[in-house]
Parts: sequence; structure tokens; C-alpha cells
Amino acid sequence: MRIKGYVFTLFFVLGVIQDSVDGRPLLLSLSRPHPDSAADFARWLVSQNSWGVLNTIASDLGGAPFGNVVSYSDGLPNKGSGIPYFYLTTLDPTASNALKDQRSSFTISEYPIGTCGKTDPENPTCAKITLTGKLKLLDGNSDEVEYARTALFSKHPEMKDWPKGHNFQIFKLEIEDIFMINWFGGPKPLTVKEYLHIEMNKVAFVV
Amino acid sequence: MRIKGYVFTLFFVLGVIQDSVDGRPLLLSLSRPHPDSAADFARWLVSQNSWGVLNTIASDLGGAPFGNVVSYSDGLPNKGSGIPYFYLTTLDPTASNALKDQRSSFTISEYPIGTCGKTDPENPTCAKITLTGKLKLLDGNSDEVEYARTALFSKHPEMKDWPKGHNFQIFKLEIEDIFMINWFGGPKPLTVKEYLHIEMNKVAFVV
Repeated sequence: MRIKGYVFTLFFVLGVIQDSVDGRPLLLSLSRPHPDSAADFARWLVSQNSWGVLNTIASDLGGAPFGNVVSYSDGLPNKGSGIPYFYLTTLDPTASNALKDQRSSFTISEYPIGTCGKTDPENPTCAKITLTGKLKLLDGNSDEVEYARTALFSKHPEMKDWPKGHNFQIFKLEIEDIFMINWFGGPKPLTVKEYLHIEMNKVAFVV
Repeated sequence: MRIKGYVFTLFFVLGVIQDSVDGRPLLLSLSRPHPDSAADFARWLVSQNSWGVLNTIASDLGGAPFGNVVSYSDGLPNKGSGIPYFYLTTLDPTASNALKDQRSSFTISEYPIGTCGKTDPENPTCAKITLTGKLKLLDGNSDEVEYARTALFSKHPEMKDWPKGHNFQIFKLEIEDIFMINWFGGPKPLTVKEYLHIEMNKVAFVV
């Protein structure tokens, strides 16, 4: 166990220089935690990605679940809180759906990060996570909305120039359930408390 | 209009050698249609990608919309039918949800294809499509299931070696509504009939 612990620490502390998959410059980022460390792995996945599919209930489509591609941020780079924040306009169905029915989930794949190699995106060793909960509009004057705005604009610089007339507002997913597959053997047992408890900013990373 | 038609034909007929974003070898693929050609664009996007987020209603999570990362295929490479087929096991919640409630949507982003450049994944010029409808289990002996199996296994070769004991079965999304954003100005008007009418296999591509 001690050796395993050291190996894990080594994995977790060592940063790697990853070649971003979207053609952007090389980024410094945390290394991929061991799949057995469910909370660390989940927080890594949420921290490293920048977009996913946000799902709401579409009352105008017979109550169908409606997925929408969105950008998000859970905090400053490598200092995420684990809570995904979104910058949405009610001109888009997702925000207007959420204002009628907050039931929601947010789904992220490891595949576009580039760390799955040639593994198929549906293969359980290429990780995926679905955070289920309530999609809530943040109070425009709260401390949290300031934190979220900084988190979003630092990860998605072009957002600050998006049209004012579209009335973009900040939403958060209040997480109630976590479904994550990152290896064989089914979803990893992981409570919301375990997930939120990890402090990303105490983890060393390459600078 | 004639010039526009020629330009469009040129765009549509010319194949480009794209650098795949996932580290795989260079692939030959159809070029990106003009955003105004909604049906062509939608079929291109569905044909070019290989994975997305499949949404169902999770009765065990209070009826929340549950998005799950899955692989798919709509046909042989560059000869897609526009209908997404999936290879799912009821060990995973998506298939078991669908067997209780067929309401579903499937969401694909252009971002991981690599043709959005440095544009943010939520920017409307980086295309996204959500196909809403019913997620149906195919009859194991039908002609369609043979077509779908070939489509899936040719695009996702490792699927044929997935564990027999997991009882993977083929599902299809019967499309009822299409939501696609691929430029400014909101979702492109596009009916299911228009979408399915395009014949991909009459389009020339680089060989």
C-alpha cells in the first residue's frame, strides 16, 4: 500500500506538458490521476476540459431530454472548485428550459482532451462523467457570481466580448449525483461530498 | 445564385485532408459545407464525427435528463444515412432508461473534429447539432440491424471485440426534431425530411 501510495503521489504531483487537441498552444496541466482515485480523477477531468453537453428537459419537445454543447469553467486553471459554471442566454433553449425546470445533467468526455490515445470514446478506459443536479441562475450581485465570471472569462476569453444585448447570465449546476466511468467494472462509487472535498489548489503542478 | 451554386458545389465536392484531433493518422474526409446549406451541413457534421452525448430520462434520478458519452455511426465512411446507430448494453443506464422511456436526444459538437480552429466551443460559428426523437432497440434479425452493425463496426473496429457477456445491442435514434447552430442568427431552420433527403453517397470525395 505504501508503494502504491508513492506511485499514486508521483502520478498526481508530476505535471505533464500536454499537446492540446484543438490546435491551441501547448498547455501546462496536471497529470491524469490513477483511475482508482475516483474523486481526484473526477476533479481532474472536470478541471481539464472546457466544454461538454448540458442537458435539460424540453417541455416544447414533449418533455424530451435536450442536450446542448456549452463551454464551462469550474475555476481558475488548475484551481477548480468542481462546480461547473455556465454563461448562457435565454435566446438558447437550455437556459429557458432550466428556468422552467431545473432538473439537469452535465456530461464531459475525456476523449477531446487527448489522453485516451486511440481508444474508442465509448471504451470504459476513456473516461466520462455525468454530473446530475439542478441548473440554477446565479444572483447577479453575489460573491459567487464574481468568482464564476472570473473562472469563465479566464478559461474562455472571448466570452467577455459576447453581445451584451443577448443578456448572457451565469448559471451553476448544483450537483446531486455523480456517474463516472474511467476503467472496466462499471461506474466508480463517488459521493458528491467526496468529489467536492478534494482541494485542487494543494496539488503541485508544473510551472 | 449561379455563382453561389458553383462556389457551394466546389466547397461540397472538394475533399480535404484533415489532421484528426485525436492523434490518429491523417484522414481523408468531405469538406465542410457552407453554413447556409443547413441539410448538407447537418449531414456532414453527423457523418464526420464518431461520438456524442446521448440523452435519456433517468427515472431513478427523479426524471432528470441523463447525458452519456457514446460512440455512434450513421453509415459507412462518407456514406452515412443521417440516422445515428448505437451499440449499447443495459449494464449502462442509457440503454435501460430507453427501454422504459424512449424520449431521447443526441448531441454532437464540431469542436472535436478540429474544424473550429481557435473558436470557443460555445461560439455559434463552431457548429453543434441536437437530434431529438425516440431511442429504439432494433430487432436483432432485421436488415436494418445488419446495416447498422456494419456501419458501427467499420467506424469503431474495437466494438466487435467487446465482451459478448455484456449483451450489447443496437439502438437507433428515430429523429423527430433537429436543432442546429452553425453560424450567428440562431438555429438553422431544418426539417427531418430535408435532413434525411440528402444523399451523401452522391457526393464526390478524395480517395
